[in-house]
Amino acid sequence: MATQITIDRALVEKYILDLARHGAHGETGVWRTVYSPEWVAAQAEIEGWMRSAGMTVHRDAVGSLWGRIEGTEGGKSIVTGSHVDSQRPGGRYDGVMGIIAGMIAVKTLVEQFGTPKRTLEVVSLCEEESSRFPTAGFWGSRAITGGIKPGDVDTTIEWEGGSISDAMREVGLDPAQTDEAIRDDIEAFIELHIEQGPLLEQQGLPVAVVSAINGIRTYIVEVSGVSNHAGAFPMDMRSDPMAGAAEMISGAISTAHRWGRPAVTTVGRISAEPNYPAIVPDRVVFSLDNRHPDPVKRKLLYETHEAMMKEIAARRGLEVSWTIRSEHAPCQCDPEIVRMLQEAAREQGVPFTTMTSGAVHDSQQMAKIAKVAMLFVQSKDGRSHTPAEFTSVEHASLGTQVLAAGLHKLAY
Amino acid sequence: MATQITIDRALVEKYILDLARHGAHGETGVWRTVYSPEWVAAQAEIEGWMRSAGMTVHRDAVGSLWGRIEGTEGGKSIVTGSHVDSQRPGGRYDGVMGIIAGMIAVKTLVEQFGTPKRTLEVVSLCEEESSRFPTAGFWGSRAITGGIKPGDVDTTIEWEGGSISDAMREVGLDPAQTDEAIRDDIEAFIELHIEQGPLLEQQGLPVAVVSAINGIRTYIVEVSGVSNHAGAFPMDMRSDPMAGAAEMISGAISTAHRWGRPAVTTVGRISAEPNYPAIVPDRVVFSLDNRHPDPVKRKLLYETHEAMMKEIAARRGLEVSWTIRSEHAPCQCDPEIVRMLQEAAREQGVPFTTMTSGAVHDSQQMAKIAKVAMLFVQSKDGRSHTPAEFTSVEHASLGTQVLAAGLHKLAY
Repeated sequence: MATQITIDRALVEKYILDLARHGAHGETGVWRTVYSPEWVAAQAEIEGWMRSAGMTVHRDAVGSLWGRIEGTEGGKSIVTGSHVDSQRPGGRYDGVMGIIAGMIAVKTLVEQFGTPKRTLEVVSLCEEESSRFPTAGFWGSRAITGGIKPGDVDTTIEWEGGSISDAMREVGLDPAQTDEAIRDDIEAFIELHIEQGPLLEQQGLPVAVVSAINGIRTYIVEVSGVSNHAGAFPMDMRSDPMAGAAEMISGAISTAHRWGRPAVTTVGRISAEPNYPAIVPDRVVFSLDNRHPDPVKRKLLYETHEAMMKEIAARRGLEVSWTIRSEHAPCQCDPEIVRMLQEAAREQGVPFTTMTSGAVHDSQQMAKIAKVAMLFVQSKDGRSHTPAEFTSVEHASLGTQVLAAGLHKLAY
Repeated sequence: MATQITIDRALVEKYILDLARHGAHGETGVWRTVYSPEWVAAQAEIEGWMRSAGMTVHRDAVGSLWGRIEGTEGGKSIVTGSHVDSQRPGGRYDGVMGIIAGMIAVKTLVEQFGTPKRTLEVVSLCEEESSRFPTAGFWGSRAITGGIKPGDVDTTIEWEGGSISDAMREVGLDPAQTDEAIRDDIEAFIELHIEQGPLLEQQGLPVAVVSAINGIRTYIVEVSGVSNHAGAFPMDMRSDPMAGAAEMISGAISTAHRWGRPAVTTVGRISAEPNYPAIVPDRVVFSLDNRHPDPVKRKLLYETHEAMMKEIAARRGLEVSWTIRSEHAPCQCDPEIVRMLQEAAREQGVPFTTMTSGAVHDSQQMAKIAKVAMLFVQSKDGRSHTPAEFTSVEHASLGTQVLAAGLHKLAY
């Protein structure tokens, strides 16, 4: 199929700007957490667009919205979409860009090629960011893949205190029925998302085909020593956990740097106790976020960090211990769909590269029940999770064009 | 003078335990901030002891208590003492040990040798720790040396909100008259204090003669970079202030370690912004406490740290800036009094060493108007500013004996 697909760029721009009104925050920001009034309004607007594109629409048990074009040959569905919730505040593109691209891609395909053989669905997932309920992350895709455990609806509590089950009831959902969101009839899930990194901009490209999504493990590391007077205790007799932590942080960051792309290690959070300038601390706690898309190298990265931290602690007479705050296995995208998306981009004349995803995505959850793949569109300055995030209408439209061409290969 | 001086060890123990009742905190702690009811009670008890030892007593304009034995030949006074306030909580020894030793030394001298030629005074300084008013540090010795500036009584505000002038009025002091505490008739000030470090214990010695007190400069260092996604932003494109701060902290601490005693550098306080595990921070702020008793080496230590931090920031594409939170010049003890205290210890058969003080002390203020010297007594495990601080009655008594012998040389 080398037929050019024409995306209505004005419609792409309209959808971006219209959705940005729901939870608008300042000039360009969006603050739209799951089950909030803004979220309800956004899903209602999306439902209207789905219906006007000829889709049948239903809301699942956790509030994700599904628009469906029945295929002439039936079988499992080909699904595209992403999440409708935002950071607090986030920008206009993270998540919704994939819903907009999915709706416009399917609408364009139906207009240009008629009814597909395979059933095509667009999903507006209810939640991904854990921005209202810190442990709710991937609520929409976890519901679909059976990843919500009994009791989760009561133990998932918002930063401000209420449970997600209360919030669900407020928007007319029954938290006892989350299992009804489970799907076993999805063949493939293709998610378009903003890159959230600087690589496409650096290379001057609008689009990337994603071959794998990073595995992530976040440690909370605690280094303990002996608190002492900052003046009266000589350096050679100290067990200073700040000295140990600084060496560990330098070591972990420089290991990832030395390994090169796509390995990343980040220390974003740190605290000391008692946290007084004139007292050698007795405890330093820091987070250690590590990502790699290759399962074997990822394991080696963790082992390297752990051995390094143990060596430093032993040499300095410190105690080190850690807990694992979050862990997601890396996700290999389906090689056949990856190849097909690359071909689609080439046929449409859209310049692209292939990369791995540093951020985690709903696709990682969906991979439990379906073949997955992703497309990235360029992020200005690599920014995301901020009102400053930006993707041009041109790049969004080129990404939508590749998505449509890929869906055409799968469904027609 | 090789006459043995006999210190009443039971009295040393009684004074330690009696004073510890005022502001008793838990089993062995003391919480006695300046101008509190506990502080009033401690000063009242000390006043009684001074009077019973035959001293004339007066309270100066900021509430420091002076006990005086008039010398037969008049002239400037020989003064000993320390501060009566504590950390919150602190222990039973920091500060008051020097008041107790001073009272018992002078009492013992008068009992054993009669009226001195030179006037002897014992001072119970009102405040040193800045534990109630963060900017009040050395309130007592600053008042004596003219270090309280006009307006300080109104701008010195407690952690909880009130001004020091209100607190002074509550204990019957007139904040407008702080200048009346200024003294210009002090020849020498000798302060006995707990070591607050581990060196005497390590060497198995009860007492040290202090030859110099560290200069201190505390920086608040701010390292700024660019906040980015912990997954999607490759290591080689980051401007990560945590990576820079960790390298600076390691560098500063290892420089002081490499220089060896008595150089010390401590990072006791640190924070990151926005302080999320999955976000490369855009700002890391840490304290950098640096001490050295030698004015030239101290300057070189600061210059070494500053050059190192600038180099790291420039190499990593970060901004670094700092403010100086506190600065005290090093204080050289009077060489003649140091030599005389060493001789006194030898004559009394008290094993001792000579060292510099890592902590800051009232003696540094007093050095502006008088010759100063200090004696240290052993601290168990080098602990201080904690209820766990401990000095044995034996070591306290041996220190008091050396102090008495030194005062004898100066005043008889």
